[in-house]
Parts: sequence; structure tokens; C-alpha cells
Amino acid sequence: MNIRRLKMWRDQHRSMMNSAIVAVNSRQPYSPFSDELTNYEHAQIEQGEIRFKRLLDSKFQIDRRSSADLGEKRVGKETSPYGFPLGISYRAEHFDSLVKKANRSMSKWEHLSVELRSALLCEAITRIHADTFLFSQVGMHTSGHGFFMGFHANAVHAQARALESVARICQITAELTQQVDSELTVGDAQPQRILRNFQPKPAGLSLVYSGRVAPTWGAYPCVFASLAAGCPVIVIPHSEAILPLALTVKAIKSVCAEAGVSADIINLFCSDNDADYRKAAQHRAVKLIDYMGKSEFGKWLRQHAWHARVMTQQSAQTSVFVHSTDNYDGMIENLAFGLCSYSAQLCTSPQNIYVLKDGIQLPDKIITVDVFQRDLVARIDQLLQRFQPPRDLLGVIIGKQTVADIRQCEGARFAKVLRHCELLQDPEFADAQVLTPSVIAVQPGFSSSLDYYASEVAGPVSFVIVKDDLKTVARELSYVGQEFGVLGLGLYAIDANVEKAMKCVSADIGALLSVNFCGNYFISQCSVFTDIHGGAVNSSSDVTYGAPGFYHSRLRMTEDRTVVCTP
Amino acid sequence: MNIRRLKMWRDQHRSMMNSAIVAVNSRQPYSPFSDELTNYEHAQIEQGEIRFKRLLDSKFQIDRRSSADLGEKRVGKETSPYGFPLGISYRAEHFDSLVKKANRSMSKWEHLSVELRSALLCEAITRIHADTFLFSQVGMHTSGHGFFMGFHANAVHAQARALESVARICQITAELTQQVDSELTVGDAQPQRILRNFQPKPAGLSLVYSGRVAPTWGAYPCVFASLAAGCPVIVIPHSEAILPLALTVKAIKSVCAEAGVSADIINLFCSDNDADYRKAAQHRAVKLIDYMGKSEFGKWLRQHAWHARVMTQQSAQTSVFVHSTDNYDGMIENLAFGLCSYSAQLCTSPQNIYVLKDGIQLPDKIITVDVFQRDLVARIDQLLQRFQPPRDLLGVIIGKQTVADIRQCEGARFAKVLRHCELLQDPEFADAQVLTPSVIAVQPGFSSSLDYYASEVAGPVSFVIVKDDLKTVARELSYVGQEFGVLGLGLYAIDANVEKAMKCVSADIGALLSVNFCGNYFISQCSVFTDIHGGAVNSSSDVTYGAPGFYHSRLRMTEDRTVVCTP
Repeated sequence: MNIRRLKMWRDQHRSMMNSAIVAVNSRQPYSPFSDELTNYEHAQIEQGEIRFKRLLDSKFQIDRRSSADLGEKRVGKETSPYGFPLGISYRAEHFDSLVKKANRSMSKWEHLSVELRSALLCEAITRIHADTFLFSQVGMHTSGHGFFMGFHANAVHAQARALESVARICQITAELTQQVDSELTVGDAQPQRILRNFQPKPAGLSLVYSGRVAPTWGAYPCVFASLAAGCPVIVIPHSEAILPLALTVKAIKSVCAEAGVSADIINLFCSDNDADYRKAAQHRAVKLIDYMGKSEFGKWLRQHAWHARVMTQQSAQTSVFVHSTDNYDGMIENLAFGLCSYSAQLCTSPQNIYVLKDGIQLPDKIITVDVFQRDLVARIDQLLQRFQPPRDLLGVIIGKQTVADIRQCEGARFAKVLRHCELLQDPEFADAQVLTPSVIAVQPGFSSSLDYYASEVAGPVSFVIVKDDLKTVARELSYVGQEFGVLGLGLYAIDANVEKAMKCVSADIGALLSVNFCGNYFISQCSVFTDIHGGAVNSSSDVTYGAPGFYHSRLRMTEDRTVVCTP
Repeated sequence: MNIRRLKMWRDQHRSMMNSAIVAVNSRQPYSPFSDELTNYEHAQIEQGEIRFKRLLDSKFQIDRRSSADLGEKRVGKETSPYGFPLGISYRAEHFDSLVKKANRSMSKWEHLSVELRSALLCEAITRIHADTFLFSQVGMHTSGHGFFMGFHANAVHAQARALESVARICQITAELTQQVDSELTVGDAQPQRILRNFQPKPAGLSLVYSGRVAPTWGAYPCVFASLAAGCPVIVIPHSEAILPLALTVKAIKSVCAEAGVSADIINLFCSDNDADYRKAAQHRAVKLIDYMGKSEFGKWLRQHAWHARVMTQQSAQTSVFVHSTDNYDGMIENLAFGLCSYSAQLCTSPQNIYVLKDGIQLPDKIITVDVFQRDLVARIDQLLQRFQPPRDLLGVIIGKQTVADIRQCEGARFAKVLRHCELLQDPEFADAQVLTPSVIAVQPGFSSSLDYYASEVAGPVSFVIVKDDLKTVARELSYVGQEFGVLGLGLYAIDANVEKAMKCVSADIGALLSVNFCGNYFISQCSVFTDIHGGAVNSSSDVTYGAPGFYHSRLRMTEDRTVVCTP
């Protein structure tokens, strides 16, 4: 092992690491990597696109391999949502063989100090950051991001999440590491000294199932926390978003190689047989499973991989209650942007908009529900004009069912369609599904409407739901939160009582409450190092990024105690 | 709710609470309640016995009930291991009805501050402490404790564990509660202020399955942590050890009644149908399950109650490696006491004693294996002479299979019996099973011997296992730890390399390592507030009392954030 190199990286990244630890303790916002495009060179952006194109139709090489591996099995059928196949193939190794490698690599990795493990991971994060515009492109062509979303969610913000995880593990490791020297007197006997030593150890092999919507942002907290804790990691990427994780694993492996650390602390598992993904979870060597995605597979994992600690973030939606505001224009702008951005494919995008039948209270007047609905639709239309091409804002639809799902909502008996979802022709990508938002007013008196909007409908559809009073809104949100899951809750209110009531509701159902978000900071946004993510209480979700429990679960505590005999 | 009373209790218990919080942070030993008998009045001890006898053959009244409940169903068939039926019956309420009550009680309970919840729980702990000698008796007549074990494990040490849990939850609640005021600048826009509020919330309904060996010591950490966190608790006691938990629940309920807090924050579930205990775990309202006991039911819980967070401490044994010592006599005394105390029915009692074939190195000579075996057996015999009646030391056997299990070990082909287990006639309790320890030398060359000693054999049997060298011992302990579970590891060594190697092994398998414990502080002992308990890595155990993760699991984190608009 090249300890000198590790120490060099530690010194190089010391200031970033220290800032990160200060940030996780204080929860004050910290941006290790700028998310302003203007802080980057245009050449970097171009280079990202060139490098992405060079990857197309290639055999992805995750590490340096001998020629003996040329006969290896390869898989991979990713298709860009922008309408072309990536043509990239990945090595398909047996899961059992990856487990063996992981277990072999673990002993040396866990015996490195957390400081040196963090140094290596910081170096990896820094290199991933240097590839930011490659990751932006990759986010577009695996997850359908618009360019800006790829830059944020698939690159700089994900990198921040990775660093946050490393910092959290450092902090918790320090908390769990204690030496205690104490005196013990039992009965009349002579006092004895006991030296105690408390030390965290990694929980063991960590399996991370990454998703498609935000592959790196979703997976990095798990991957980097597990690695920092000393756990080897096997990543099982979504079959349509292998590339972002393959690039990540490759970056970590190359840093390992330079430091003389076994590159098997992280591996990628790909298969063309879905059954293999289930079998992997059932391997007895797996101690931790992270999963973010559809509830069905999450539930399956909990039921069948009960030998491991299974942590899932499952489907949940985001709702908004528009009660009153002193910044009506800023509110409308914020909502309209939320409905358009990445076609509301994030589970943190607003979907259900509650208003009271009496309208929206402004300081000097009341806006009726009708006017609000018109203003919202009008602002969406204006926004779409501002972005040329619109796909920069809307991104591309990734769900094959999305259009059909939205049409079904629009055609439902309860639905009064305020704005129809339209398919736009993109000038550059003829086969890309670019959709504009559908806005549906839920007509009262149809009890079946909840079947449509209580769960997440991935994609650009929102429901304006009119209720009689605060109490009715609170009751429905509580019910939906307990039964279906509400991840985020937006609130516009200048009435302290309403704010107080909604704080109770959101805490009860584990929704992140965002109050009076106007202008250009959005409900769907999350300040890494500061905001938590996850926590909806619907039965099978139990993971919250940024909350200590998420990091503690990767470490177990050990103790030895020595009596200093006085014979 | 009687807030004034809660505040009075808070003030009364403030100094104990503060000391407890200091102790959990520093891990310095802290004894809120003396475990020296001499610090108690003889009258208290007598009173405990009288009160216990008064409970016999009664209808246990867990709270004040109206006469309407006289027709209720009652269950309970506890038999004292000392040889007589307790004749106590308990109300058997439907689990569904207990769940409804728990959920109704939760809202007010969780909305009390953690400070006032703690005040109520401290008052309950103090009252339980006042009943210490009742609990000692109850420990004897449900768990087969000797009087002293009942006093320690079923009373004062369990009370300390309860207080420790409350302190931990206070500390974690403080850690998770944060207000953050920060400025946000997005692009060129005017900076905005965001006020963030982080708050922990209880995870939800907590189910605690308590065991028989150490019913209160095992259950209190879970019960009091959950209650302090704001979770309502339903306790499902072992059918042979209902009374200790019934008394505990009653004490908490009576404190609740005085404070005007719903007494349904805690309830006891008893049934005469084992299937009901499984059905309870599958109730969807249950969010947390704590279980301590046999692996079979622990595994069942993990497989079938996957909707909840299941935390289990399952069967595991304790081993000792006798390498070298500078206090041979103190070591022999310590080991012999460990084999006798409570007939080694605790999983933390030594079971497997490893020695090297070359014998035990003393500063000036070597003790051969033969001499060591003779000395150990002789010391056991001496010890038994010292305690009159011997049941004060040995306690009473609770397992129906124990004698047969031990006889099977003694009769196994690998076994050279150094000391046969004998049934003693107790002068006072004719039907009590008082057994003296069996010591078996494992003859080499029988691979089947591991089938006998790798798992826990509850009861007074130990195996002396001779190995060639340190490496062979380490390898076997690693294997047994991974596959079967090693909870504790004793080591006698004056060689720093041996100590270092065994520290690695014990940390790998999650065993609490106790080095050079001589005289009267025993491997099986645990300084509450200081030592952790649990953590053996065999697959389905994942609970460590005293480690932060155990307490974090009872809380989830919530956030609200408010933009202070600058319109």
C-alpha cells in the first residue's frame, strides 16, 4: 500500500474535508463544488460532450485488465431517452466472484484509518468532479436530464452528497472511538484499573441498487458512506443507467490502483438476467442493502433479504398547499418552474396542489381558485417560451408508460383538464419524448380521484385539489402520507396558525416541509450538508440522507477492556 | 396533563439525569443505584419477600380498573424454578385493542418535551428501584436467579440500563434538534434567508419481546429508550417470566396516572395461544420490534415482520482463551466463579476455554494443561463449599432440557469429563433443580465436537479445548464467531502480541473482549453506562446496548424550512 500517496491526498484535501465536517455538524450550507455554470470554462463543457461521444459504441473498460479477459461476457443495452442506443457494453462478472473479491479486499481497507480512507475517497470525488461535464452528458443520455439538471443532479450536487457522506462517517467514527481509563471497586477488594477501548468496525459487504432518475445523486450517499466506513461495495445499476455508476466505479478503482489499495473494494454487477439482481440480494455475505426506487422491488428486498440490513427509499410524491402569500408572483413562478423542471420526474417535484375553495389570501385581496388556475397555466406557457429549446428545461421523458398514464389521468371522470400535456418536436433529437406539463383540476365528488393522485405519477402532471378548509387538507395529507408516502410538502402561508398546523402534519408523515419558496429556489431542491432527504413514513421507507442513523447503520461498535491487575 | 407534577419530577431527578448524561458521553462508570447489599436495610430485603408472597395466587391488577372488567379473560401459568406455581393471573386483552390504545396515547406523549418524558420515566425508575427487593425475589422465582443475581440483574443493574436509555435518548434528541438560519444566493438573485428547523420524531409503536434469563435487564433498554423517544410500547413477556414486566408496566402506568398522561403509552400483552405472539409482530401498526432470545424466533421475526424495524439479539456464547498470566490464582478464581454463577445460564458466562497444548505461561514457570484442568475443578469444588446453600451462587436451572443436554455432552465421544454435573438437594426447595458445573475436556481428533460447543449450551457446562497455537485458536474463534456467534471473549495473556491478535479477532466477530479479569470482576459483568452489550456478528443479530445506533433507531428526523421572502 502506498501510504505516502494516501497521506499526500489527505494533506491536499484537508481543508475541503474539514469544511465538510464543520458543515455536517452545523448544517450550514456548504458547496464544495460550484453549481454556477459561469464558474466553469466553456472548453470544459465541450470536452464533456466530446468525451461522452467517444464512449458511445465502446466496450467500457472499468479497470486495467489482462488480455485473458478478452473472452469475458459482456452486457448492456442502454438507450438514450434522446432517442439513440448508447451501444456501450460492460463486463458481466459472476456475483459470487465479486463477493469473494470484495471480502478479500475488505480486511486491508477497513484497517486503514478512516482518515486515510477519506483521503482516498476525497481524491476520487475530486476526479469525478473534474469529469463534471461528462457526467452532465451522461445524466442526459441515461436519465433524460436536461443539460442543467445533468450538471446539477448527476454531477456537482451528487459529488457534494458523496463528500457529505465521507464527512458524516468521519464524524461518527470519531464519536464512536473512545478510550476510557477508570477505576473499579467491587466490595471491599482493592480497586482495579480498567482500560477500555471502543472502536467502530464496518458492518460488512454493502450492496447498492442505483436508480435511473438520479443515479449518482441517489447512490453516492450510500456508496461513499459504506466505503468510508470500511465496507466493500458492489453497485447494481439500473439497466438503463449503468454508465454513470460505471464511470464512478472506474474513477474510484483508478485511485485505488494508484494508492496500492485493492480496487475490489468497489465493483459493478451487471447482468442480462433480472433474476440475478434478486439472487444477489439473497447472498448471505451481503450485510447492507441500499435501494431507491419502486416500492414493489423494495418490498421484495425486505421480505427476501432479511438476513441483511435493508434500507429503502420507495415511491412517494410531493404536495403543495397554497393557502396565502405576500408574494403571489414569486409563488406562481416557483410552482410553474417546479412543474416543468425535468418534467417533474423527480419524486420531489410538486404533484398535488391543494387550495381552499375560498381562494388564496393575499395581503390586500383574495385570488379565486379560477384565477389561480389560469395564472398557473399561463406562467407554464411563458416559462416554456423562455427556454429554447424547451428540452433544456423539460428534459426528456424516461418512462415508457408516462404518456399513457397522463392521458389516463386527463381522461378520468374527475378530471377537468386545465392544460393538456403536449408532445413537442425537438429540433435536434427527433425521437426524444419532450412533454409539456398537464394540469388537471380535480372535480369534487369523485372518491376515485385519490386512486390517481395519492401515489406518485412520475412525469409532468399535476392536480389542483380544492378543499373546504385547513382541517380537510391536513386530514387528507395525513392519510396520504401514512398510506402512500409524501416525501415533500410545499406550503404558501402568511398565517402563523396554518404554518404551525402544517408543520405538525409534515413531521407526522415525514415530509420535508418547504414554506414560502418563491422565485428561484425550489421545493425539489435540497442543500446538501444541510437538508435531509427521505423519511416519508409510508410503511417500507426508512432511509433519510443527512440524518445520523443512515450513517450509523454502516458501522457496528466494538469494545475491549483490560484489567490492570494488582496481584 | 399535570405539567406541574412533571416539572416537579424533573427538578427532583435533575441531578441523576445530568449525571447519567455525563456518563453516557464520557463512558465513565456510573452507578445510580448501589449494587452493594450493605447499603440497604435488612427490613427492605424482608419486605421484598413479604410483598412477593402476597402476590402469589392473586389476580394481578396492572392498573386501576372499573368493575366492568371483572369478566375479563385472564391467563398466566408461571411456575417458579424453585418448584412451585406462582398462581398469578394476568389480564389477556386483544392485541388489536392494545394497538388502538397505544396509537391514541401516542400523540400527547410525543408532544411532551423529551425533558418531561424523561422526568416521568425517572420517577418510574425511582419507584421501581424502591421495589428492588421485590424484583430480586421475582428474578429468583421466574428466572431461577440466586438472590444476589436477582438483586443485580433483575433489579439495580436493570434500573441503571433503563436510566442509561433515557439519557441516551435525551442526548440524541439534543443532537438531532437544530435550528439553522442561513443565507441563500442562487445565481444573480437577491439573497434569501432560510430558517431551518430539525426535529426528531418517534419511530412509532414499539413491540418488545422480553426473555426469561434476564427479563428486566434485557427489556429495559428497549422499553425505556422507546418511551423516552415518544414511542408507545407493548411488552410481550416470556410466558414463564411475566411478573417482572407486569410489575414494571404497572409502575410506569401508575406514574402516568399521577401525571395525567395516558397510561396506554405502555401495555402488556399476554395470551395463552403462542400464535398470538406471532400475529402481534405482523400487525402493520408495529414499527419497531426488539427481541432477545433463541435464534429460531428471531429469524422468524426478521422474515415475517419485515414491515417493521426488527432488532434481535440471538443466541451466542462466550469463550475464553487462557494463554498466560501473572495472577494465576486470581484467574482460576475468576473462571471458576464464572462457571458457577447462576449456573452459567447467561450467554455472557464462559463456556469454551481454550488453552495451548504447551500449557499456560506464568512469569516464572509453565502450568501444564493437566494441572490447569485440575486446579479449575478444585476451585469449583472449593467455591461451592463457600456458598451455603449453594443455590445462592448457582441459582436454579430453568431449562427443561438442560440436564439432558449436559449429559449428552458428557457422554459424547470427544468428551473426557473432568467434573460431572451433579444435582444437589436444596434444603429449602425440594423441587428446585440445583446443578453443579460440568467441565469437559475436548479430546482432539473428533471433528464432531464443534457441533456440541460452537453454539450456546445454556447451563453449567464448559469445555476445555486444547489447540496447537495462537493461530489455530484465532481461526476457530473467527469461524465460530461468524457462523454461530460469540458474544464475549475472555483473554488471559501477558504477551502483547497475543493481546493484539485477540483484539483483532474479537472486533471482527463483535465479541466484547475482557482481558486479564482476575478476582471478583467477571467477564459476564457489564458496567452499565460504560460497556456495550451485544454485537456478535453471526447473521441475524444486530443490536448493541450502549451503542448509539440502538437509540437512533427509535427516532426519525424531520425538517421544515421557511424562506423569509424579500419580495
